[in-house]
Amino acid sequence: MLDTIFNHRSIRKYKRDPVSGDLLHTILAAGTRASTTGNMQVYSIVVTKDELIRKQLWECHFKQEMVLQAPVHITFCADFNRFNKWCELRKAVPGYDNYLSFFTAAIDALLVSQNVCLAAEEKGLGICYLGTATYNARRIIDILKLPKGVVPVAAVVLGYPDEAPGKTDRLPLESVVHHETYKDYTPDDIDRIYAEKESLPQTLELLEVNQKETLAQIFTDNRYKKKDNIYFSKEFLDVIKEQGFMNNE
Amino acid sequence: MLDTIFNHRSIRKYKRDPVSGDLLHTILAAGTRASTTGNMQVYSIVVTKDELIRKQLWECHFKQEMVLQAPVHITFCADFNRFNKWCELRKAVPGYDNYLSFFTAAIDALLVSQNVCLAAEEKGLGICYLGTATYNARRIIDILKLPKGVVPVAAVVLGYPDEAPGKTDRLPLESVVHHETYKDYTPDDIDRIYAEKESLPQTLELLEVNQKETLAQIFTDNRYKKKDNIYFSKEFLDVIKEQGFMNNE
Repeated sequence: MLDTIFNHRSIRKYKRDPVSGDLLHTILAAGTRASTTGNMQVYSIVVTKDELIRKQLWECHFKQEMVLQAPVHITFCADFNRFNKWCELRKAVPGYDNYLSFFTAAIDALLVSQNVCLAAEEKGLGICYLGTATYNARRIIDILKLPKGVVPVAAVVLGYPDEAPGKTDRLPLESVVHHETYKDYTPDDIDRIYAEKESLPQTLELLEVNQKETLAQIFTDNRYKKKDNIYFSKEFLDVIKEQGFMNNE
Repeated sequence: MLDTIFNHRSIRKYKRDPVSGDLLHTILAAGTRASTTGNMQVYSIVVTKDELIRKQLWECHFKQEMVLQAPVHITFCADFNRFNKWCELRKAVPGYDNYLSFFTAAIDALLVSQNVCLAAEEKGLGICYLGTATYNARRIIDILKLPKGVVPVAAVVLGYPDEAPGKTDRLPLESVVHHETYKDYTPDDIDRIYAEKESLPQTLELLEVNQKETLAQIFTDNRYKKKDNIYFSKEFLDVIKEQGFMNNE
């Protein structure tokens, strides 16, 4: 298993080969062994193979080519709908229409997603997380027919890899780990932490292509812009409310 | 690795044996191989071994005995502080003080946490998630000295197991997996899904001890009460705002 964890790469090119039902079953079962709050399992896993539905999802995920290619699209959802229905049928009054419950269910769903991804990789499949599940949550809710009490929090595409990319760089371990309590970063710390990343050949190429002075500017000005973040923040908070998780009074 | 995933148990009794620095290093490094949004690594991992600090954290986590026992306490945090500081030192203007950025960083932190837990279990350690990290986030922020831009989203205790519990039951796989789109649950579905859980010996014992008619009532009336959920929802939303993640206009 450590090998699988340490060899993780996000795969962005997939073969058309389907993933067998048995294999998917094993992977999804592995998902459900993740820790879950109070053993409530307040999540759902929506597995989409249908090409037409996947094409609709592809539009939600900013039309990334791999979303069309990969034969399996999995949407991990925070889900109190099933649990609430159970409570109501068992003479119990559920009080899970609030933000804490949403966040609890989101944690559940995300731990499941990571188990599913590792099990898939262990079995020779490739995966890629789509960070965009929260951006266009409302459209995903429409496409996947998610009822009240259900919010998508992560999506993953999955299939047999058609590329073998190298490992992505990471910051030095000691820069993301704090001992005992948090030690805030001095400007010297920041310089040291980011030195390797900033001197990578691909970073220099990015600066050239994007005509930017620093790598940080590529994040703030091109990739993750304040204007977009604000727009999608409002959207996602609205969705959380519409799905019934903001009754906090 | 599949064995490790399928053999997961939450461990609630720990030996006093310390966890070596080398082993911890491997486990934490495994954490950082998890997928991360745009390779930004917007998380931090706070590893606490000091007994006095762990005792303070124990109070935040509703004084669960295992928190005192386990020699290592890890708090996983959504963290844009480091990234923002980098941007500011590189002539870039970060726009990550909004809810979407918080949630993105929370996803990052949670995927790391699951990698860390699986790596630990693979190496013979036991783990237990503390669902209470979000409940008392403000106190954890004080104890761990988390600056603005940093919010704890999960905590885990870790050490050598001093018990060998059986596997926890799970709902039938087909009840948490949906094919193509979400199929909502009928009352019959709910009856079928929960039948096994409701007839477990430990469920019957719980009903007896708690003098309740249904298992669902134990959740709604005892374990996860509306009043508490509302209180902690407000608290956590306030913390997210105080830590600088609610500038959505």
